[in-house]
Amino acid sequence: MTERIHATYWLETGVDPQLAADVIAGEQSSGTFVALRTETPELKARSGARVERLDVLDRADTPSLPGGIESKVYTRCALELSWPIENLGPSLPNLMSTIAGNLFELRQVSGLRLTGLRLPPSFARAYPGPAFGIDGTRRLAGVERGPLIGTIIKPSVGLSPDETAQQVKELVAGGIDFIKDDELQGDGSHCPFDERVRAVMRVVNEHADRTGKKAMVAFNITGDLDQMKRRHDLVLAEGGTCVMAVLNSIGLVGMHALRRHSQLPIHAHRAGWGYLSRSPELGWDYAPWQMIWRLAGADHLHVNGLRNKFSEPDDSVIAAARAVLAPVMPEAPMPAMPVFSSGQTGLQAADTFAAIGCADLIHTAGGGIFGHPGSVAAGVEALRESWVATIEGVPLERHAQRHPALAAALGFWR
Amino acid sequence: MTERIHATYWLETGVDPQLAADVIAGEQSSGTFVALRTETPELKARSGARVERLDVLDRADTPSLPGGIESKVYTRCALELSWPIENLGPSLPNLMSTIAGNLFELRQVSGLRLTGLRLPPSFARAYPGPAFGIDGTRRLAGVERGPLIGTIIKPSVGLSPDETAQQVKELVAGGIDFIKDDELQGDGSHCPFDERVRAVMRVVNEHADRTGKKAMVAFNITGDLDQMKRRHDLVLAEGGTCVMAVLNSIGLVGMHALRRHSQLPIHAHRAGWGYLSRSPELGWDYAPWQMIWRLAGADHLHVNGLRNKFSEPDDSVIAAARAVLAPVMPEAPMPAMPVFSSGQTGLQAADTFAAIGCADLIHTAGGGIFGHPGSVAAGVEALRESWVATIEGVPLERHAQRHPALAAALGFWR
Repeated sequence: MTERIHATYWLETGVDPQLAADVIAGEQSSGTFVALRTETPELKARSGARVERLDVLDRADTPSLPGGIESKVYTRCALELSWPIENLGPSLPNLMSTIAGNLFELRQVSGLRLTGLRLPPSFARAYPGPAFGIDGTRRLAGVERGPLIGTIIKPSVGLSPDETAQQVKELVAGGIDFIKDDELQGDGSHCPFDERVRAVMRVVNEHADRTGKKAMVAFNITGDLDQMKRRHDLVLAEGGTCVMAVLNSIGLVGMHALRRHSQLPIHAHRAGWGYLSRSPELGWDYAPWQMIWRLAGADHLHVNGLRNKFSEPDDSVIAAARAVLAPVMPEAPMPAMPVFSSGQTGLQAADTFAAIGCADLIHTAGGGIFGHPGSVAAGVEALRESWVATIEGVPLERHAQRHPALAAALGFWR
Repeated sequence: MTERIHATYWLETGVDPQLAADVIAGEQSSGTFVALRTETPELKARSGARVERLDVLDRADTPSLPGGIESKVYTRCALELSWPIENLGPSLPNLMSTIAGNLFELRQVSGLRLTGLRLPPSFARAYPGPAFGIDGTRRLAGVERGPLIGTIIKPSVGLSPDETAQQVKELVAGGIDFIKDDELQGDGSHCPFDERVRAVMRVVNEHADRTGKKAMVAFNITGDLDQMKRRHDLVLAEGGTCVMAVLNSIGLVGMHALRRHSQLPIHAHRAGWGYLSRSPELGWDYAPWQMIWRLAGADHLHVNGLRNKFSEPDDSVIAAARAVLAPVMPEAPMPAMPVFSSGQTGLQAADTFAAIGCADLIHTAGGGIFGHPGSVAAGVEALRESWVATIEGVPLERHAQRHPALAAALGFWR
């Protein structure tokens, strides 16, 4: 039996749902707007996409998106399509064109969102997935259990290399596990990449030599391919343990080429995710999207955070984190680490742990660490102790009685 | 004076528009959710994004997108921001993170669409743009004036290499200028890329040897980087004159790397454009999007077609085509060729010509050619004659009196 690719969609249509499903399946395989004498029944049976499931969910009297065929009623459905692997082979770029190509603009569609993806094992043979994942990240960061306690250099841009290194110095002295560049920080003339890496790694290495603890710093190497490779090589040469790339900015081919070159974990930033997802009736759910990037090699994937400062609701954040922790496929789990950020403090630890059932994550806080009335070190300790309490099932207030840094943090976190 | 990057947005917000604009500018440069002691006035003056213009357009009482700050009134504005080039340098991937990063999901935003982009000359020094453009394409296709008359192999997938070559044989015998793979046709096991190229180019070369006319075939080389390079090299070795890539499937880094490698024009497909654009209150206009891809090296860019079969209205199609024909910047025009497709026949020629003011385009028709009651050759001739009439300013009906193929086409095109 041939291997098949399965994708699920939330579909809204002003025409008969079965017709809309058939049009989408046809448009994304052997059909087109007009009947073709060359699309023989044999060809269609072999190469056509199949409507595997079509369940009506509800109806609306106005369309979610403009430009569709006008109707008095718009039917919303759960749709599952499948394609034979022979149409495209196990290729992530061609998978993109197939499952998310010219279908969102069909007139038979007034809303379409890609909600799920199931890939055959040949994709796992073609793409090795994350080179480090959870275990490799823990090993390099020296964090055996619990989350990596992390932060982001701020202001996002504007600091010089020395000012950046000064901030890193405070953070590593405070015992932080993980630091990242902001996604806006690349290789601008005011903070050139090479100088920044050298200045920061001098501080990180000095601290590691003295204490044995080397903080993982995700340097944003986003750029053209040769730039990314060269920047990766510099980070590696300077003793760094992580590189960061902005997925929507580099694209799938860039990510795959970086994965092949990289000897370090790839911290994958999702900047731009909003334009792919903010309209509930269009675009992408995080589950299928992150699966493609994990196959391409992402070790860490951003999932926002509970009670974040953006517009994403908590249930969406949790679904995203669970997707990152779920196996890509039974034959190839390819575990990656979810990264929680945005308005995070120790107050979100217990709910986050309860929702995802493990502490295999990176928890980054900015104000939640730097705002501590004691010191940056106390801010790091407070966030870490909130996770100790969470994993032990002890209420924060009780744990705080024996941990003054946490006690002081509870005041300003609230 | 420092070079600055300018981007314009359509913004809808539930808060004071000036506040929303400041939040976006801050989030995408030196600010963040909380005031930072390290964001000094000097740093902000040097590295902060600037609100250059904020014009209120109208107001609504419901938000376009969910998740924003609730309000009784939502204000829609035209917003222009600018950034100093020092923040990121002339880097297209980092430009993406800056102008289209973490801003669409802000709670101060209930609608945000990137509508325009103006880049400083340093980008043109860093990125050479299309290697062939309009002139190079005309030279390779042997079409001195008027549009390239083109078509797409159908069914999109399912034909074998020999069946594909058979279809190409009919088309080149009919005098076609341009043929493209469907974006779904990659390197599947039923129609392997190498076999397809060899079979098709045998037909194209034989015809060219006999007649001196070599049709341009855009082979879809979309894949991982090594695959794309190898496929490009095969097309070149077999005497082919064009390669095609699906932009959203390969990403910016892939496109840039392909441009550096390619010795052939790159036909850029926009499959997936719907998820970036179908919601009018979110995502991307085509003008800024295509500018980025032209800088990265796209020679031909799809713009849909007038009275197309998709949901895009004609004014949007025309705006897209004009954007592709407009200079990237005064210092570096980087002309590329718009590709019109979807439900196209000779009936759209006059309106298309009137709207864009030139015939520097590729006009592809499927049913408009294959459906001709005479032959494929008559279909090609009819479409070409419709452009002859258009450029000469002669009504189709009158021109058809001396061109039976066009006369026969007028019947079935209507």
